[in-house]
Amino acid sequence: MITTFFEDFLRFLREDIPFWDLTSELLIPEDIDVRAEVIAEEDGVVAFTEELSSFLKGMGIKTRFIRSGSRIRDGDVIMELRGKVRRILLVERTALNLLARACGIATKTARVVEKVRKINPRVRIACTRKTTPGLRYLEKRAVMAGGGDTHRLSLSDMVLIKDNHLAIVGGVEEALRRAKNAGFAFKVEVEVSTPEEAVKAAEAGADVVMLDNFRPEEVERALSMLKAEGLREKVLIEVSGGIGEDNVIDYAKFDVDVISMGELTCGARPLKMSLEVREVIR
Amino acid sequence: MITTFFEDFLRFLREDIPFWDLTSELLIPEDIDVRAEVIAEEDGVVAFTEELSSFLKGMGIKTRFIRSGSRIRDGDVIMELRGKVRRILLVERTALNLLARACGIATKTARVVEKVRKINPRVRIACTRKTTPGLRYLEKRAVMAGGGDTHRLSLSDMVLIKDNHLAIVGGVEEALRRAKNAGFAFKVEVEVSTPEEAVKAAEAGADVVMLDNFRPEEVERALSMLKAEGLREKVLIEVSGGIGEDNVIDYAKFDVDVISMGELTCGARPLKMSLEVREVIR
Amino acid sequence: MITTFFEDFLRFLREDIPFWDLTSELLIPEDIDVRAEVIAEEDGVVAFTEELSSFLKGMGIKTRFIRSGSRIRDGDVIMELRGKVRRILLVERTALNLLARACGIATKTARVVEKVRKINPRVRIACTRKTTPGLRYLEKRAVMAGGGDTHRLSLSDMVLIKDNHLAIVGGVEEALRRAKNAGFAFKVEVEVSTPEEAVKAAEAGADVVMLDNFRPEEVERALSMLKAEGLREKVLIEVSGGIGEDNVIDYAKFDVDVISMGELTCGARPLKMSLEVREVIR
Amino acid sequence: MITTFFEDFLRFLREDIPFWDLTSELLIPEDIDVRAEVIAEEDGVVAFTEELSSFLKGMGIKTRFIRSGSRIRDGDVIMELRGKVRRILLVERTALNLLARACGIATKTARVVEKVRKINPRVRIACTRKTTPGLRYLEKRAVMAGGGDTHRLSLSDMVLIKDNHLAIVGGVEEALRRAKNAGFAFKVEVEVSTPEEAVKAAEAGADVVMLDNFRPEEVERALSMLKAEGLREKVLIEVSGGIGEDNVIDYAKFDVDVISMGELTCGARPLKMSLEVREVIR
Amino acid sequence: MITTFFEDFLRFLREDIPFWDLTSELLIPEDIDVRAEVIAEEDGVVAFTEELSSFLKGMGIKTRFIRSGSRIRDGDVIMELRGKVRRILLVERTALNLLARACGIATKTARVVEKVRKINPRVRIACTRKTTPGLRYLEKRAVMAGGGDTHRLSLSDMVLIKDNHLAIVGGVEEALRRAKNAGFAFKVEVEVSTPEEAVKAAEAGADVVMLDNFRPEEVERALSMLKAEGLREKVLIEVSGGIGEDNVIDYAKFDVDVISMGELTCGARPLKMSLEVREVIR
Amino acid sequence: MITTFFEDFLRFLREDIPFWDLTSELLIPEDIDVRAEVIAEEDGVVAFTEELSSFLKGMGIKTRFIRSGSRIRDGDVIMELRGKVRRILLVERTALNLLARACGIATKTARVVEKVRKINPRVRIACTRKTTPGLRYLEKRAVMAGGGDTHRLSLSDMVLIKDNHLAIVGGVEEALRRAKNAGFAFKVEVEVSTPEEAVKAAEAGADVVMLDNFRPEEVERALSMLKAEGLREKVLIEVSGGIGEDNVIDYAKFDVDVISMGELTCGARPLKMSLEVREVIR
Repeated sequence: MITTFFEDFLRFLREDIPFWDLTSELLIPEDIDVRAEVIAEEDGVVAFTEELSSFLKGMGIKTRFIRSGSRIRDGDVIMELRGKVRRILLVERTALNLLARACGIATKTARVVEKVRKINPRVRIACTRKTTPGLRYLEKRAVMAGGGDTHRLSLSDMVLIKDNHLAIVGGVEEALRRAKNAGFAFKVEVEVSTPEEAVKAAEAGADVVMLDNFRPEEVERALSMLKAEGLREKVLIEVSGGIGEDNVIDYAKFDVDVISMGELTCGARPLKMSLEVREVIR
Repeated sequence: MITTFFEDFLRFLREDIPFWDLTSELLIPEDIDVRAEVIAEEDGVVAFTEELSSFLKGMGIKTRFIRSGSRIRDGDVIMELRGKVRRILLVERTALNLLARACGIATKTARVVEKVRKINPRVRIACTRKTTPGLRYLEKRAVMAGGGDTHRLSLSDMVLIKDNHLAIVGGVEEALRRAKNAGFAFKVEVEVSTPEEAVKAAEAGADVVMLDNFRPEEVERALSMLKAEGLREKVLIEVSGGIGEDNVIDYAKFDVDVISMGELTCGARPLKMSLEVREVIR
Repeated sequence: MITTFFEDFLRFLREDIPFWDLTSELLIPEDIDVRAEVIAEEDGVVAFTEELSSFLKGMGIKTRFIRSGSRIRDGDVIMELRGKVRRILLVERTALNLLARACGIATKTARVVEKVRKINPRVRIACTRKTTPGLRYLEKRAVMAGGGDTHRLSLSDMVLIKDNHLAIVGGVEEALRRAKNAGFAFKVEVEVSTPEEAVKAAEAGADVVMLDNFRPEEVERALSMLKAEGLREKVLIEVSGGIGEDNVIDYAKFDVDVISMGELTCGARPLKMSLEVREVIR
Repeated sequence: MITTFFEDFLRFLREDIPFWDLTSELLIPEDIDVRAEVIAEEDGVVAFTEELSSFLKGMGIKTRFIRSGSRIRDGDVIMELRGKVRRILLVERTALNLLARACGIATKTARVVEKVRKINPRVRIACTRKTTPGLRYLEKRAVMAGGGDTHRLSLSDMVLIKDNHLAIVGGVEEALRRAKNAGFAFKVEVEVSTPEEAVKAAEAGADVVMLDNFRPEEVERALSMLKAEGLREKVLIEVSGGIGEDNVIDYAKFDVDVISMGELTCGARPLKMSLEVREVIR
Repeated sequence: MITTFFEDFLRFLREDIPFWDLTSELLIPEDIDVRAEVIAEEDGVVAFTEELSSFLKGMGIKTRFIRSGSRIRDGDVIMELRGKVRRILLVERTALNLLARACGIATKTARVVEKVRKINPRVRIACTRKTTPGLRYLEKRAVMAGGGDTHRLSLSDMVLIKDNHLAIVGGVEEALRRAKNAGFAFKVEVEVSTPEEAVKAAEAGADVVMLDNFRPEEVERALSMLKAEGLREKVLIEVSGGIGEDNVIDYAKFDVDVISMGELTCGARPLKMSLEVREVIR
Repeated sequence: MITTFFEDFLRFLREDIPFWDLTSELLIPEDIDVRAEVIAEEDGVVAFTEELSSFLKGMGIKTRFIRSGSRIRDGDVIMELRGKVRRILLVERTALNLLARACGIATKTARVVEKVRKINPRVRIACTRKTTPGLRYLEKRAVMAGGGDTHRLSLSDMVLIKDNHLAIVGGVEEALRRAKNAGFAFKVEVEVSTPEEAVKAAEAGADVVMLDNFRPEEVERALSMLKAEGLREKVLIEVSGGIGEDNVIDYAKFDVDVISMGELTCGARPLKMSLEVREVIR
């Protein structure tokens, strides 16, 4: 939500300017109105421009921008800014650091989604909770802008039973029995490490089964076993662990519902871009 | 400062757990004491363990850990944790997201520094203000842990005159004349785009001159001209712009003081690591 | 999560003590250690004692207490406190205001759940988002302590399509078609106003259908129609709107999955209790 | 104060929307301007509309509303809202949760005040510090809107000597002797448990004497004794403890100055109301 | 309240250390335990040591200290600190800035109180709302430590009708008629500018009358008129405006109840003191 | 930076108005638009009007004002305000407390600078870190408005080696050797206590040498020794410690670069000023 995030934006600015901008204060004693542009320096997919525009408006800077989800080419103007030059130079670095990260993630996500869709149009490409602390909103939204699925947003919106839980509880069935007390509003997912466990989890009523760190052939076997037991349609199947842009096709060729990749958020390079003051407005 | 950052840590936890951890609450109704380990899954350099340990202590979790700046190998235990299992699972993702990022930056920095030192032991490898909003402390410290230089920390601790400033002010000399009013406590740096401008900036009294987006041969020419004018010893020379792990050597071979690379912070991959609950403590 | 909530607790204290406690400062210049008790003044069910105990510990007050979910009788000691008397008097009102509210909600929930279970052991009694702003954690937890279901915790953890959405979108099918783009991790619920709409929603793939403001006979008809279409097993059925402690039985007698009642949180009276300083500890 | 409270309003929104509104984002991808109404579903007294209007303005929503203190009838429009529909749906629940609570308290207070005024036009009906943590401003203002007295706002604006203080200090006279050092700006009140103590407190110079948990006949006796000693005019007399809407008349018939009731704030039911989107504005 | 203020203390530290202490990190890489002392460099009265000690404890520094209200001599140890040297150097400046201010105010207050008591032991010396924004708690407490009266703490704890109010309302009687609706818990004071107005205010029922910017002879005349009308015993009389350490005696010689002086808080010099590291603890 | 400070301004208002302004609410039930003026009651130099104007705008109050750095005379209008009278009375005290402090510091600084310039036009008059916690931005800016130098802004923007560091490290040379690892962006200053140490510090490469608590004749000797060694031009010389408005000339007559005085911020009296409501605007 935009209003919430504005508070974060101010905190980011304080981080970059604990007192004041020493340079602009000295060099530009009389503030002037300018028009500036954020220009893409490589091809990509846009994200976060709506939110950034809203922050900048709160800082007295008017904008025009390309909407989230749009494709851009090297040299395109992602956002045009109009306002006091000292104000624009004040927010420049923080704004670019956020925008470049968001666009980088959207670009990577879109690239993976496009690649995967060619061989399996139904599978969802999802990110994980491996997001930058403090920027989960931005990064999950960027994944959406690139056509990906957010997966759960936090520990408070889905039950996901992992290896450390199973080790303590003692087994998939008992874990799912306890998870039944989760509110009716939440889905229950189980992370399993063998095809046999996948069958057990589906039988015990999991909504989603995550095949964790399965080799492709193990995925195939798990799917066969689930079908044989008539359980395939009753659960969503997610594959996860060690999947990146390089090997995602090895998994996408199977009939899985979700492929999740931590790399979407924590392995994306910021999109190259820069801010240029274009003209003084009189 | 550690105490300050703890507030951020709680905010990061709130982001990951807006209400409560649905899963652990259901599966582990009776909390137990455990010993867990954070294990490196690749070689690298450690950073941020002191700060993380301090947060975890504030959360009731005791730790032993490898100090910032140390080299580790795949399989090494970076940190050992002891405490309530629900508490450990609560902080797991946030802690790893921070630690992996810090270690990734330290590792990349150390790799660059080592490479460069072989041919020029005197040059400093510095990062920039291209840091993740909200994590500048962590990322600048990680660069230090890897043997790099932090460069300025914020807009409030150095005067750095950039192209957008020069365009408005009209020239290097006038810009430096105005910058003379900066407090005596601050250094003044000028970003220049030609060797001639570099000479002007040095003559006009800059403490540091940044050769921005210079090709290697231009750097060489700028240094020659400065020497010829007897100005080389009066300024620090920084090269910046488009320098990465791949081409840093092309610049390091010259007699420059600082090479700065945005890539150190925004192009580093998180170090691979995982948290494993090792045993129940009775 | 406990640590998060502590920040709220301090804010609540600041609300009650913007400067200092004028009275205790004057009357008790030399602080002393005492033992105090929070005593129930009516029967009920306990909630929030774990969290309150944790805050009080943070304020230097040690506690022993009855666990959330336990039944208590008039006169029982819910919590025993040991610490400086000025500190205890400082937190008294805030602590009681929170605890009495939580126990009141747990008590009401338990009463409804018990009543309903006698005729339908399978149905879940859920609360809604009609919680006190700032106290959702406390109130949802109190409902859990009383044996109720939390329903969704926020707008960010479930898709729930309501009348205002349908009016804009134009119909149940189109709404559900759009909702298909929700992340795979989230359930999709539709609020309907006629039995026919309920069937449409189930056909269109809703995970949960909410029969909103249905009279009991309408609920019965909707269930029949769903069964007739072979859709009953494919969805969860929630009834909601105008259901309170008085008429809940009229709905519980049907084969519904969830009965939700705003009254659980916003119609519960605080449980009567008081804090008494019992003895000076030397 | 309005600006202060806005920060709380944002925190309440964050509680309800930790990430974003899953539903509206999917269903209403193109935002539209609408006119909506908050409609009373029962008779009552309005409170908090000025403050709510101010928050909504801060969220980009324009309003027209009925002023605090006004009486309304079932079906009346309490507030009209104009703005983006997604923004209105975003704040709907939080706004209603606050407004319904405020109006509920104002309504209950007005009902009690009216009842009491018929037999004693001079007595003040006051609330206590039994308010919802985080909402004291709202609840005290709602009591004012209903014609009640706020009593002290916090522990920092009046000296009020209670039983726990007296137990430690040893007696009313000594307690009042110490309270004499309170700043001249503050009134001093003493809570007493017998008519004899009331006389002692008045003699010792209390500004207000609270007859705590007195039966009606004890109140009568205390008043007689005070008159007999010529002390009645020197103090304000407050009765408190166990007084609710049902038995308030038993106390109001005496010549007391203030009747305080925790029930005004913690026993009031939210006023029934709902928000309806009325039309799309083109 | 101490816990509240700790949040402020951390904010003050962040102001002084936005990133980290550059110097100590470089010079003292291995932290050591030391004993340090805060030493008075002139005579004075102590204040704020209890609160400061509490903050320092929260920072891991143990203390022994002289209590608020005590007199000290040049050279006395106000506080002894034990802890890590880097931690002590981190808080040094912030701690001294707070402590020196508090002790300076207490010292000045005590000096004025002592001077005044000799000729009028009954009059109270009060400060005003001319406090440093953000430090009202500290400064009002320091005045108390010096034997002064806090006056009202904020705009929310007393009704004080000033000239700007009277100009709008139209007169003292009407102003007091409206003020009658103030809660019973609050005193009502009126600022008057002539002896005649003072009489009117007392007649109309003010609890306190402030003679604002009266010359001594006007004060005398106002007191005479009040006595003549039999009103002197019914109100407290405060004199205010332009009264400082130099001329306070001119006012103290009259039978007034309160003399208020903005100078106590905004004209006090910080008490001279310094922190010295005394020894390394092994 | 302005946006950052606004948060502080709201916190200051909350401090002064924890609930609401009791008086204005009662006396001015119908709000009106007025024009008010802040009037100087003595000669001085203006500071902080830009920032204050920005806060007031955020509170709905329009302003015209005299710019920072301008000289004013007794009776001048520093700022004109237009807005709702209740809003203006709400912020009055907080606004004046800030503005008077800033102008007081600027005035004192300008007086010292003017005095010093007559005999040494080149020397800079600097303040220190002896600022009011929470108001460093305001006070450093006020010093600038008066023509002074801010000195370092925090512990994070300069290396300054003090006596406590030297005691632990063991000597100036070793201290400077370690300080060499400071980032290239920061200056390194050493505080010395003898002329001999000053020479050592200059030889060892300090950027600035602070002659701490030197008597004038010692300053003279240190300067001579530095010149004799050919080191004078290589360092900036700061004198500090015990220098105030009275004796600053004794130091300014020497060829020093910087004279720093804690007194500029912590010894300045607030400039006398008041706010008057001038007329009702219809």
